[in-house]
Amino acid sequence: MSEINLLERWQQVRQRSLALAEPLSAEDCMAQSMPDASPIKWHLAHTTWFFETFILESLEPAFRPFHPAFRVLFNSYYNGIGEKHPRAQRGALTRPSLAQVLAYRQDVDARLSKLWHEEKSAQLANLIELGLQHEQQHQELMLTDVKHLLSCNPLLPALFVSPLPELHWASPFTWQPFQAALLEIGHNGDGFCFDNETPRHRQFVEAFEMATRLVSNGEYLAFIEAGGYQNPALWLAEGWDWLSSQKTRHPLYWQLHGPQWQEFGLYGLQELDLHKPVCHLSYFEAAAYAQWVGARLPSEAEWEYAAQGVTHNRAQQKNDLQQLFDHCWQWTSSSYAAYPGYEAPVGAIGEYNGKFMVNQYVLRGSSSFTPTHHARLTYRNFFPASARWQMTGIRLARSLLNTARTM
Amino acid sequence: MSEINLLERWQQVRQRSLALAEPLSAEDCMAQSMPDASPIKWHLAHTTWFFETFILESLEPAFRPFHPAFRVLFNSYYNGIGEKHPRAQRGALTRPSLAQVLAYRQDVDARLSKLWHEEKSAQLANLIELGLQHEQQHQELMLTDVKHLLSCNPLLPALFVSPLPELHWASPFTWQPFQAALLEIGHNGDGFCFDNETPRHRQFVEAFEMATRLVSNGEYLAFIEAGGYQNPALWLAEGWDWLSSQKTRHPLYWQLHGPQWQEFGLYGLQELDLHKPVCHLSYFEAAAYAQWVGARLPSEAEWEYAAQGVTHNRAQQKNDLQQLFDHCWQWTSSSYAAYPGYEAPVGAIGEYNGKFMVNQYVLRGSSSFTPTHHARLTYRNFFPASARWQMTGIRLARSLLNTARTM
Amino acid sequence: MSEINLLERWQQVRQRSLALAEPLSAEDCMAQSMPDASPIKWHLAHTTWFFETFILESLEPAFRPFHPAFRVLFNSYYNGIGEKHPRAQRGALTRPSLAQVLAYRQDVDARLSKLWHEEKSAQLANLIELGLQHEQQHQELMLTDVKHLLSCNPLLPALFVSPLPELHWASPFTWQPFQAALLEIGHNGDGFCFDNETPRHRQFVEAFEMATRLVSNGEYLAFIEAGGYQNPALWLAEGWDWLSSQKTRHPLYWQLHGPQWQEFGLYGLQELDLHKPVCHLSYFEAAAYAQWVGARLPSEAEWEYAAQGVTHNRAQQKNDLQQLFDHCWQWTSSSYAAYPGYEAPVGAIGEYNGKFMVNQYVLRGSSSFTPTHHARLTYRNFFPASARWQMTGIRLARSLLNTARTM
Amino acid sequence: MSEINLLERWQQVRQRSLALAEPLSAEDCMAQSMPDASPIKWHLAHTTWFFETFILESLEPAFRPFHPAFRVLFNSYYNGIGEKHPRAQRGALTRPSLAQVLAYRQDVDARLSKLWHEEKSAQLANLIELGLQHEQQHQELMLTDVKHLLSCNPLLPALFVSPLPELHWASPFTWQPFQAALLEIGHNGDGFCFDNETPRHRQFVEAFEMATRLVSNGEYLAFIEAGGYQNPALWLAEGWDWLSSQKTRHPLYWQLHGPQWQEFGLYGLQELDLHKPVCHLSYFEAAAYAQWVGARLPSEAEWEYAAQGVTHNRAQQKNDLQQLFDHCWQWTSSSYAAYPGYEAPVGAIGEYNGKFMVNQYVLRGSSSFTPTHHARLTYRNFFPASARWQMTGIRLARSLLNTARTM
Repeated sequence: MSEINLLERWQQVRQRSLALAEPLSAEDCMAQSMPDASPIKWHLAHTTWFFETFILESLEPAFRPFHPAFRVLFNSYYNGIGEKHPRAQRGALTRPSLAQVLAYRQDVDARLSKLWHEEKSAQLANLIELGLQHEQQHQELMLTDVKHLLSCNPLLPALFVSPLPELHWASPFTWQPFQAALLEIGHNGDGFCFDNETPRHRQFVEAFEMATRLVSNGEYLAFIEAGGYQNPALWLAEGWDWLSSQKTRHPLYWQLHGPQWQEFGLYGLQELDLHKPVCHLSYFEAAAYAQWVGARLPSEAEWEYAAQGVTHNRAQQKNDLQQLFDHCWQWTSSSYAAYPGYEAPVGAIGEYNGKFMVNQYVLRGSSSFTPTHHARLTYRNFFPASARWQMTGIRLARSLLNTARTM
Repeated sequence: MSEINLLERWQQVRQRSLALAEPLSAEDCMAQSMPDASPIKWHLAHTTWFFETFILESLEPAFRPFHPAFRVLFNSYYNGIGEKHPRAQRGALTRPSLAQVLAYRQDVDARLSKLWHEEKSAQLANLIELGLQHEQQHQELMLTDVKHLLSCNPLLPALFVSPLPELHWASPFTWQPFQAALLEIGHNGDGFCFDNETPRHRQFVEAFEMATRLVSNGEYLAFIEAGGYQNPALWLAEGWDWLSSQKTRHPLYWQLHGPQWQEFGLYGLQELDLHKPVCHLSYFEAAAYAQWVGARLPSEAEWEYAAQGVTHNRAQQKNDLQQLFDHCWQWTSSSYAAYPGYEAPVGAIGEYNGKFMVNQYVLRGSSSFTPTHHARLTYRNFFPASARWQMTGIRLARSLLNTARTM
Repeated sequence: MSEINLLERWQQVRQRSLALAEPLSAEDCMAQSMPDASPIKWHLAHTTWFFETFILESLEPAFRPFHPAFRVLFNSYYNGIGEKHPRAQRGALTRPSLAQVLAYRQDVDARLSKLWHEEKSAQLANLIELGLQHEQQHQELMLTDVKHLLSCNPLLPALFVSPLPELHWASPFTWQPFQAALLEIGHNGDGFCFDNETPRHRQFVEAFEMATRLVSNGEYLAFIEAGGYQNPALWLAEGWDWLSSQKTRHPLYWQLHGPQWQEFGLYGLQELDLHKPVCHLSYFEAAAYAQWVGARLPSEAEWEYAAQGVTHNRAQQKNDLQQLFDHCWQWTSSSYAAYPGYEAPVGAIGEYNGKFMVNQYVLRGSSSFTPTHHARLTYRNFFPASARWQMTGIRLARSLLNTARTM
Repeated sequence: MSEINLLERWQQVRQRSLALAEPLSAEDCMAQSMPDASPIKWHLAHTTWFFETFILESLEPAFRPFHPAFRVLFNSYYNGIGEKHPRAQRGALTRPSLAQVLAYRQDVDARLSKLWHEEKSAQLANLIELGLQHEQQHQELMLTDVKHLLSCNPLLPALFVSPLPELHWASPFTWQPFQAALLEIGHNGDGFCFDNETPRHRQFVEAFEMATRLVSNGEYLAFIEAGGYQNPALWLAEGWDWLSSQKTRHPLYWQLHGPQWQEFGLYGLQELDLHKPVCHLSYFEAAAYAQWVGARLPSEAEWEYAAQGVTHNRAQQKNDLQQLFDHCWQWTSSSYAAYPGYEAPVGAIGEYNGKFMVNQYVLRGSSSFTPTHHARLTYRNFFPASARWQMTGIRLARSLLNTARTM
C-alpha cells in the first residue's frame, strides 16, 4: 500500500469509529450489557491503546503514555503487556469520561502522524495496518455490542430512524456440487492478512455440495414450528444442555407478539422479514437446523473451496453461490485450529490469535456489520459454540462422498 | 407538620437529591458497580416513581403516567405494583437519559404541587411525608453507592476536592453501665416514623454496660495486626466461611500502600485516620472484633435504652454516650424482626419493611451520610450480615447479668 | 446422675445408634444425599470421635488414637481440633469400611469404660454426659438424613415395613391466651443442658395467644389449594426468592399422584394423612402459612412461657397446649442468639453452639425422631430458614398487645 | 467372528467386569467422587442395561424388564430411550444393592444366552458385539473412576498390593519424519469399529515429524521446574483461565512430599517414576508442554498416518514409533468431528457417538487400562480439553511444511 493511501485509509478507519459512536450518548457509550460485550467507550479507547502500546511505546522517541493507568485499563487480553482490568467490570469505568477518551484518540493520532512523517518504514506501515485491521474488527463489535445493549433495555430503543422496509427476496434454495479436490488453503501473501490465515497449505476435500444461499428467517421459522427446539434428537448433547439451561426457543433477537414474530435491531423492533437470512444463532442452533433438513455445516476448507469459485480441473463448474459476504457470518463445522506450519509472531502481538485456538468454531464470510473491504476469502472469524450476539447465520452443506468415490 | 412547612421541606428534600447528583457526570450516574448498589440515575427516578405511583396514580384526577414503561423500570421491589426490572441490570439502562429522568422529576413535582394545592388532606400530607422519608433513605444510598462505584475504578477518582485534614480525637474508651429495667421500646407516636418502629411495647433488659464511643480505626488496626482475620476462634462459623471465600483481610475501603494504610472515600484515597470510628464493616467483622476484646454487640433494646439516656428510676445515671448519631451506623446483635403487635400497612406500601424481616441485622444510630433530621432514637436500619458498603461501625456492649442479679 | 445410671445410660445410648443403623446395608450407610446431610457411617464414627477427642485424648494415660487419620476425617466443624475433611465429600469415604467404624466404636467404648472405672470424676461424668447428648442429637440426624437419602432414590424404598395406618385425629383448632408477664427464661440448672440454654434470665413478653395444637396436613393443603405458593404478598422477600429459584410448591416429601397427595417417609410412600401435623417445612413456608391465616410464629420466649404452663399470677390459666413435644419441631420467629450473659466454654468444646448464632432460627419442642428423654422445655434447636429435611412444623401465635395494654 | 468365538468372547468380557469389581467392597462400588465419574455398581448395571434395552427389549419374545425402574436408573444419555436419572446423583443409589445388580447381570446374561441359541442372526451378533465393545469401554472407565475415588480418600488406600518396582527406561527422544501424503483415513471395514471411524476417506497431510515415544515424567517435571505453570505465554487462553481457577500446578495424581514427588495409583502412593510416560494431563497441559519445547500436538490424521507405519510411496521409511498403544492415550490437536460422509445409525443407538462432536478433543492409541484387543489403529477416543482423570499423555509433533514444500 502506498504511503499516501495508508494515511488516507488511516484517517478513514479512525474516523469511522467516531462516526459509529456519533448517534450514541455518553451514557450509551458507558454501559456493558454482558461480560462478552464491551462499552463503546472502551472500544474507542482500546483501539487507541493498541496503537499507543504496540507502536508508540516502542518507536516513539521519548515516549510518555497519555495516561499511565490506561496501559492496564484498556488492555484486552495481552498477558505480555502486564495486568488487565477485569473484562466483566468495563461497565463501571465512568472515568475516564467519553470526552477524555476522545482526547486520547486525538493525542495518539497526532503522535502517530508525527512518527509516520519522521519514519516511514515498512515495519511501521505494517504495524499501522495491523492496528487499522484491529480497529475494523472492533467496529463490527461496536455494532453488535450496542445492538445487544439496546436489546436489554425494555424500552427497545431504535438507534436509527426506521428505514423504508427493504424487500428481501430469498432466491430459490439450490445445491451447488463440488468435486473432490486437493486444494490450496490459506492466504497467498497478496495484501494484508492475519497470522491465522497462514501458511497457505494443501487440504484434500471429498466431494460435497453447498447451498447457494443462506437459510432464511422463514425457513428457520418452519424449524421452530416443527418443534425443533423440543426434539433432542436434532441437537448436539452440549447444545441440548445449553438450550435447556437457557430456555432458548428462537434466535436471539426474535420476539413473539401475539401471533406475530418481530425482530429487534438497530432500527428498533420490526416485523420479522421472512426472506432475510436468519441471524444471531449459536453453533448449536445452526447444527440442529442442519440436522433437521438432513444436511450439515460446511468445513472451512469446503467453504473456502466453494468461495474460490473456480480454477484448475474444476474450471467448468458454474458457481452460483450467493450471500458469501455482507449478510451473516457462516458457522463452519471446523474447530478453530492452527494451520500446519503456523507460527504465532514473537512477543505480545503473538497473543492476537493463536492462544484462542481451542473450543471455538470458525465462521467464514462477513456480515452487514463488517466494514467495507475488511472481508476476505481466507478470513477466519471464530467464536464459542454458544455465542449468539454476533451476526451469525447458516449455510448448509452435504457430503457427496459415496457418489464421488464411485465415480 | 404545618402545610407551609411540608411544602418547604418537600422542596428542600427533592432539591437535595439533585444537589447530590450535581458533581457527577451523566456517565457517573449511569453505572452500577454491583447488584446491591444502584445507579444514581435510578435513585433519582425511583424516588420520583414512588410519588407518582403511590400518590398521583390514586389521587390525581385523570392520571396519566409520565411514561408507561417507568412503572416497571423504576419499581424496586413492590410485587403489589406488578413487574419489576431486574435489579442487577439497572446499569444497562442508558435510556431514559439522565436529562429525561430530570424532566420526569420536574413533571411529577409539578403535578404533585398542583394536587397539593387542590387537596390538602391529612392523608395526602402523610403520603408526601412518607415519600420524602423514602427519598432521604435513598440519599444515603446515593452516597454509599457512588462511593462504591468510584472505589471500583482503578483511577480511584475523588468526587470532592480533598478537605483540609480533620483532626479526629478519639476520646478515651470507657464503659457506661445500665441497670436492668423494663423499658418502653419503639416509637411514641410523636412525629413521623416507619411502621417497623411500632407498636411501642415493653421489653425487659438485664444489666449491661455500653462503650461510650465507637471503635476507632486505630483500635481495629490492632485487631488486624494481632491476626484477627486469621483466627477462626473469633468468628461466627458463617463469618469464617465468608471471609475465607472473600479473602477479606481489612475494612472495605482500606488499602495497604507499602507500610501505610490508606482509606478510599469521596475525597479520594487518604491516609488512614486512626482516631476516626472504623467504618464499612460486615456484621461478621463487628462480631469478631467484639469477641476479640471480650465484649459483644448490643441488642437493639439495649441501644435504644442507652440512647434514651435517662428517665424513671434510672434518672440518677450519668450518661456519657457519644457518637450515637452522625458517624457510623452501629450493628446490633438483633435480627430484624417484627415488634409484638406489628402490622404492616394494607396494600403495596405494606411491602416497605415487613417482608425483609428475616436474615438481616438491625443497625441503630445514623451516619455522616444520613440526611440531617432523618435520624431518630427509634429508627431501625437493617442489612444482611455480609453487607459492607454501608456506613457500618461498631459500638461494644457487655453483660452485667451476674453482677446485676446478685445486687 | 448416679454412677450406675450413667453407665447404663451410656450403653443404652451407644447401643441405640447401632440399632438405628441395623436395618441399613453398608451401602445405605455410605451415601450422602446432599452437603447438609451426612452418611450414617459418618455419624457412627463422628459420635465416637467426639468421645475419643474430647475425653480420651486429654484423660487417657498413654493415649494413642485408634487411627491417626480419623482425627481429621471425623471432625465436623471444630477449628480448635485442626483440619477437617470437607463436609460435602463425606460420601466419598468408602474407606474406612462400616465394619472398621464399628470396630472403632467398640475400641473407644472399651477404653472409655476402662477410664471410667479408673477415674470416676465429676468432670469425666460431665464430659461423658455431653458426649451422650451429642450422640442423641446425631441419632435424630441419622433418621432425617437416611429419610432424605431414600427419598432421592427413584425406587422410593421403604426402610421399615409399612405400619398399620394410624388414625390421627386433629383436635379442634383453638387459641390459648397468655397475659403479659416478666418471665424467667432458660435452664434452671437442674440436670443436663447445653450452654446455649444459659444463663437463666428475665424476658418480658406482651400478651399473646397460642394455638393449642400444630397445623395439620389438611390445613396446609388448603393453603396450597388457595394458591399460597403463588402469592408473593404472603411471603418474606427472601422466601419468595427461595421458592422461585427452588420451584417449591409443597412440603418436602409430598408428591402428587394424579389427584391424590402422598407423603414419603421411612415406611415408604403413603397416602397423605390430613390429620397429622404438617412437617418438613422451611421457616419461609411456616411464616407464609401464618401470614395467610392472619397469625404469626411465636417467639421462643412465648413458646417457653406457654410450655411452662403455669405459675405466679397466671395460676388460674388453664393450659390446653398439645403436641409441644414428640411430633414436629416448631419454628419460632426468634433468630438464634446468645442469651444475655451467655459465655461459651473455653477451648474447642466452645465451638459446639455459640459460633452458629447468626442467620439461623430457633425451633422448640421435639419430634417423633427425637430420642426419648432428650427433649427439654428450654432446649434450643436451630436451623437456617431454608432447611426442610428436619422434622419442622408450625405452631401459630397471635399478639394480644392492644387488648392487653388497654386492660 | 464365528458363533463359538462370540460366545466365548462374551463370557470373557462379561466376566472381566466382575473381576475388576472383585477387590472392591460394596461400599467402594457405591460411591461417586465427581459428576464425571460413576460408581462401579452403576457401570456394572449400565453395561447390562445396554444389552437389555438394545437387544432383549426388541428381540426377546414376551420381553419383561428385570426391574421396570432400571430403564431410567441406568440410562446414561440416550434421549431416545426416555428419562434418565441425573448423572451427578448416581452416588445416592444405595438401592438396588450390589447384590441385586449382580443378580441383574446374571438374569440378562441367561436371557441373552437363551435368545442367542434360538436366533443366531447376524443382526443379533452385531448388537452383541456392540454391547461387548461398549462394556470394554466401561471397563477402562471403571479403573479410571475407582482410581479417582480412592485418590479423594485422605487415607490414599492402595487397591492392589504394591508391585515390585518396574524399571522403566525411557528410550532416547527422537523425531521420525513423514513426507506429505494423501492418505486413506478411517476404518477399512475389516472387523468391528464404531460408527465415528467411518467412512474411510481421504485426507492430505503436509510433511511433519513425530516423536518416537511419549513425553516422560522426568521431562514433564523439567517443565514444572522451569515455571511452566506460571508462564501464560505457553498456554491457550482458556487453559490459562482453567489453571488459574483450578490452581493446577502438576499432573492430577502427583503429590509433593517434602522434596520428593510421589504419584497416586491403584498401588497406592509411590515415588514418581521419571522414566514412565507422564499421564493424567488435560489437553491444556499437553498443549502448553508442547509449546514450551517448540513443538505441537499431532493431528489425528498425522497420528493415524504415523501409526499406519508403512505403505505406498513411503515404503522406504523406517518407522521407530514406540508407545503408540498400552501406555497413555495421546491428545491430538483435532477437535472431535464427523468424518466427511459420516452418518449416525438410526434410532437411540445413533446417540452413541455423533452427538458429542463438539468441544471435545480426539485421543488416539490406548492405555494400560484399556482391555486387551480393544485398541485399534482407527479408534477415536474423545474428552473435553479439561479432562484429567483419564489415562492421557503427550506425543509431540512438529511441522515440516516449509522444508517439505521446497523439496
